[in-house]
Amino acid sequence: MSPPPRRPAATPESPWLAADMRAQQRELKRQAVLHTAAQLFNERGFHATSLDDIAERLHVTKPTLYYYVKSKDEILLECVRAALGMMQEEIGAVRRAGGRALDQLVACMRSYALIVTQEFGRCVVRTGEDPLPEPLKRELRSLKAGIDREFRRLIDEAIQEGSIVACDPKMAAFMVAGALSWVARWYRPDGELSPEEIADQGIALLLNGLVMKRFAGA
Amino acid sequence: MSPPPRRPAATPESPWLAADMRAQQRELKRQAVLHTAAQLFNERGFHATSLDDIAERLHVTKPTLYYYVKSKDEILLECVRAALGMMQEEIGAVRRAGGRALDQLVACMRSYALIVTQEFGRCVVRTGEDPLPEPLKRELRSLKAGIDREFRRLIDEAIQEGSIVACDPKMAAFMVAGALSWVARWYRPDGELSPEEIADQGIALLLNGLVMKRFAGA
Repeated sequence: MSPPPRRPAATPESPWLAADMRAQQRELKRQAVLHTAAQLFNERGFHATSLDDIAERLHVTKPTLYYYVKSKDEILLECVRAALGMMQEEIGAVRRAGGRALDQLVACMRSYALIVTQEFGRCVVRTGEDPLPEPLKRELRSLKAGIDREFRRLIDEAIQEGSIVACDPKMAAFMVAGALSWVARWYRPDGELSPEEIADQGIALLLNGLVMKRFAGA
Repeated sequence: MSPPPRRPAATPESPWLAADMRAQQRELKRQAVLHTAAQLFNERGFHATSLDDIAERLHVTKPTLYYYVKSKDEILLECVRAALGMMQEEIGAVRRAGGRALDQLVACMRSYALIVTQEFGRCVVRTGEDPLPEPLKRELRSLKAGIDREFRRLIDEAIQEGSIVACDPKMAAFMVAGALSWVARWYRPDGELSPEEIADQGIALLLNGLVMKRFAGA
């Protein structure tokens, strides 16, 4: 019989956090910086927001901020990356779950509408990539193009399965993305409609259309 | 009988233009500056475009440019004002012509789609008001709000006349404005679709919806 395992000797209490805890704390604080910055960009505009404003709302000094982020550009990039990454994950999950293409499309439209009402998602549409230097613009454009491709593919599949009318999937994907992205411009957290209500009503209008009787052309 | 009117003495030819001609020439040149600037903003982004770039494309020096405009901000403001002014005029003309609310709505949607494929209209959506200082932002927001109000009113009237489904006119106006504004983001003058084709297909999708069979909810 082997001897019972010895308990490790108790380490003396240290007033410093262990390395992994420090890294975790740092990441949490970095996320708080990004979130607060996004909030300010959405409230006041990217140009009108300074690093001082962000520091002030977080009750820290600007040098403290520099410990977590290098510049306003970096903050914007990270906010936009976060939102687009979220959208890609949602699409991936919907795709893996499978089912009718139309139902998958509706699920993706819903995620899209909900993401653009969140701070990072609002940033993507309200500020966009314009303030960023060219290589970063290219990175963001390629992330957006990937999401657009998924919407086109879903619409194309839905046309094949007979649930969506014969149309140009590219055109239809742009109309859907436009209508839903626009939510980021007009949505107010203190407005009358909740993100879920906006998603439901927006999806119904886009799928069923505005008119009572089919419109045949002007 | 009165004597025949005397012809005014012929003025000697002057190598300088008369004052009204000078003013006209100046305005023409100012418009060329705005148009070229808008083109560059749309191609490269507002931030990445300098007054030097604009001067270079016009084959003039920067001091010459300053004779027509004070700053990049002023240029942006004027471009956006021009596009929004055009849209207000179009809506005014449609309203005066009268007819079914749905037909008026379609005519306004068409104008909207065509304006956002033009340089000034693309500027409104692609750059927006973010770079501008607060009082100018407020001016532009109020112009946009006026256009939005007209769309809501038309949709409301179309619901009353029974041509549009019962829905929240505000929500529907936002969806229409979003889908059509987005055109400014993806339209390329050298792309496959003409502005007219985009307007036709976009309007058909928004009015008739995407689905074959009414979608009742997810």
